[in-house]
Amino acid sequence: MVKVNQNYLKLSKSYLFSTIAQKVGAYTKEHPDKQVLRLGIGDVTKPLTPTVISALHQAVDEMGQADRFRGYAPDLGYAFLRETIAKNDFAARDCDIEADEIFVSDGAKSDCGNMQEIFDEENTVGICDPVYPVYMDSNVMAGRKIVLMPCTEENGFIPEIPDPMPDIVYLCFPNNPTGTVIGKDKLQKWVDRANESGSVILYDAAYEAYIRTDSVHSIYECRGAKECAIEFHSFSKNAGFTGLRLGYAVVPKALVRENVSLHSLWARRHGTKYNGAPYIVQRAGEAVYSETGRAEIASLVDYYMENATMIRDGLKDAGFKVFGGVDAPYIWLKTPGQMSSWDFFDHLLTTANVVGTPGSGFGANGEGYFRLSAFGSHENTAEAVRRIRENI
Amino acid sequence: MVKVNQNYLKLSKSYLFSTIAQKVGAYTKEHPDKQVLRLGIGDVTKPLTPTVISALHQAVDEMGQADRFRGYAPDLGYAFLRETIAKNDFAARDCDIEADEIFVSDGAKSDCGNMQEIFDEENTVGICDPVYPVYMDSNVMAGRKIVLMPCTEENGFIPEIPDPMPDIVYLCFPNNPTGTVIGKDKLQKWVDRANESGSVILYDAAYEAYIRTDSVHSIYECRGAKECAIEFHSFSKNAGFTGLRLGYAVVPKALVRENVSLHSLWARRHGTKYNGAPYIVQRAGEAVYSETGRAEIASLVDYYMENATMIRDGLKDAGFKVFGGVDAPYIWLKTPGQMSSWDFFDHLLTTANVVGTPGSGFGANGEGYFRLSAFGSHENTAEAVRRIRENI
Repeated sequence: MVKVNQNYLKLSKSYLFSTIAQKVGAYTKEHPDKQVLRLGIGDVTKPLTPTVISALHQAVDEMGQADRFRGYAPDLGYAFLRETIAKNDFAARDCDIEADEIFVSDGAKSDCGNMQEIFDEENTVGICDPVYPVYMDSNVMAGRKIVLMPCTEENGFIPEIPDPMPDIVYLCFPNNPTGTVIGKDKLQKWVDRANESGSVILYDAAYEAYIRTDSVHSIYECRGAKECAIEFHSFSKNAGFTGLRLGYAVVPKALVRENVSLHSLWARRHGTKYNGAPYIVQRAGEAVYSETGRAEIASLVDYYMENATMIRDGLKDAGFKVFGGVDAPYIWLKTPGQMSSWDFFDHLLTTANVVGTPGSGFGANGEGYFRLSAFGSHENTAEAVRRIRENI
Repeated sequence: MVKVNQNYLKLSKSYLFSTIAQKVGAYTKEHPDKQVLRLGIGDVTKPLTPTVISALHQAVDEMGQADRFRGYAPDLGYAFLRETIAKNDFAARDCDIEADEIFVSDGAKSDCGNMQEIFDEENTVGICDPVYPVYMDSNVMAGRKIVLMPCTEENGFIPEIPDPMPDIVYLCFPNNPTGTVIGKDKLQKWVDRANESGSVILYDAAYEAYIRTDSVHSIYECRGAKECAIEFHSFSKNAGFTGLRLGYAVVPKALVRENVSLHSLWARRHGTKYNGAPYIVQRAGEAVYSETGRAEIASLVDYYMENATMIRDGLKDAGFKVFGGVDAPYIWLKTPGQMSSWDFFDHLLTTANVVGTPGSGFGANGEGYFRLSAFGSHENTAEAVRRIRENI
């Protein structure tokens, strides 16, 4: 008789955003006349940019020609993309990351979920509370012991370094859900501590394009990070690839534990259980780094950050306590009148017809907070802010 | 100090096809003048068909329009694709599979590699020898105990049902690497045995489009299979999507073990660690089932099967003992003169400049055998057969 993975039964029944989708689905079904504004899930709304669309069409044409057709992609991703990434995202920032330390994938969520596999199940895992659910859920599925690292108003939503340092630590800056960024000096302390203890930091940089102030875009800006850190990047939030699926992980060759190269372990995982991102999507990713591509992406990010400012200022002005929204497309707000996060979710959904994400869905320390995302249109965002202000 | 997943260290150093690629790379670097013909990896060579290309262009255009843009895909895949699959691949064959039992993915390799996660690590796993490496490697990575099921000339490359029946059994028909198919009566015995013992069969149907004789296209043609079997399908080999990445897994809702629905476990895994196949690729998959799409796919499959016949007949005529190639794009041949599989690989590479896959790379019982794939052009296939005949 087969036995199921009992760790799965320890998970909350449904992935946070699936639960929200079900609640919203039920509400709109009952109230088909209501126009519901969605500032919940971090999904972009602007279409792909002209440069990306043109690269896609060109690559599609190649796939229809006998002499240009491409079958299985190389294990790590196409060199044209990996080299472009190494040059633009790392060399340009004085980070010494080689093209063959970059593994192209179908997105940061997959990489964040899968990277834990190369580590023993006995490792302790440090996870922020509140946190993006994937780090937590993927480690619960593997049966690992979680060390929660509270992120509170008191510590500015940047966790203290736990003592003892967990074997594996997930960090994400600009942070989802709190919108917090970390200074280079503070991040350097984490890197130093990881190198002392032999821990590994899994650094999620999916939102680095949103940084406006002086903060780190990559953990490899810190000394010694190549010896202790893996980094995740995404094309979803900067270039709007949520429906196109492209990301990459950096596993430096200098990262060695128990005399084993983590780069070679991940290469083995990548080559065994994955078959590469579509050629046409990798060409689209390359186009993001072209001159026109970069200008378009900058204006996309600007657009969403105007929303962030609108939400932040509008709610502050109405008396809300708000965080984030300066270097990140997320606004983290304290619910009014000590309301619980889900109560506030239900209240906003049913009175203002606005969907946000309950802070408690990201962890116990998120209770009493609420996340709004800046990925809507200007019109919908302004309308949502207006409705929220009217319904508190 | 972090500990690595020690199970990874039990794996052979490199994925079989990566090893071959390295060997061929080294040879061609030393002999840049030689034209090497590749009948090794099962990668298609014909471009995507006009109907698929046109669907891709149309979907790309949508992604550039504000009112048609699509972000994150639904967890299970778009309904338009799941419904099309349910109708064409199942209802049309009198298999009672609902659209919401179908999980769209980026390919059968990922699904085959990931599905084991929902099962406990203590389960025993029955795996054919020889076998497609992913089933084996992904279970070794998880530390499970493997029960090898020999597939030999004597049993017609269809394994005996082991006693005791393993908790999980992988079956693949038409088989990769041996090209064998299984009759419905024989497969029914596996299904009955799995239902008696509470085991689960993971059935890889990636090559079903190549069946010409009277064999099963889906395990759900067998009585009771919905209570014990998960099935994998791919768009790679029928529609040439190796570089586009699309597949699906069927997890029936009737499949329950230890009072847990495997459908809900896989839904949780799918929703947590994966973010869906690209919208444009799902539209391409839908186009495969259109009237023109189906005609094009049929002619693609015919084309490759003409190669299979050419290899099979050409080598048989030259005195080789050959198997497969009738209902599958793979020819499985006995190496001449008791040569080892890798010796024959080196011999063919250096004398005939033809790349095949050493049978021993698929398992100990593959030793002394060799796999040739039918995915080349007619010209290259004919030339490869000519060169092999000349160099034995």
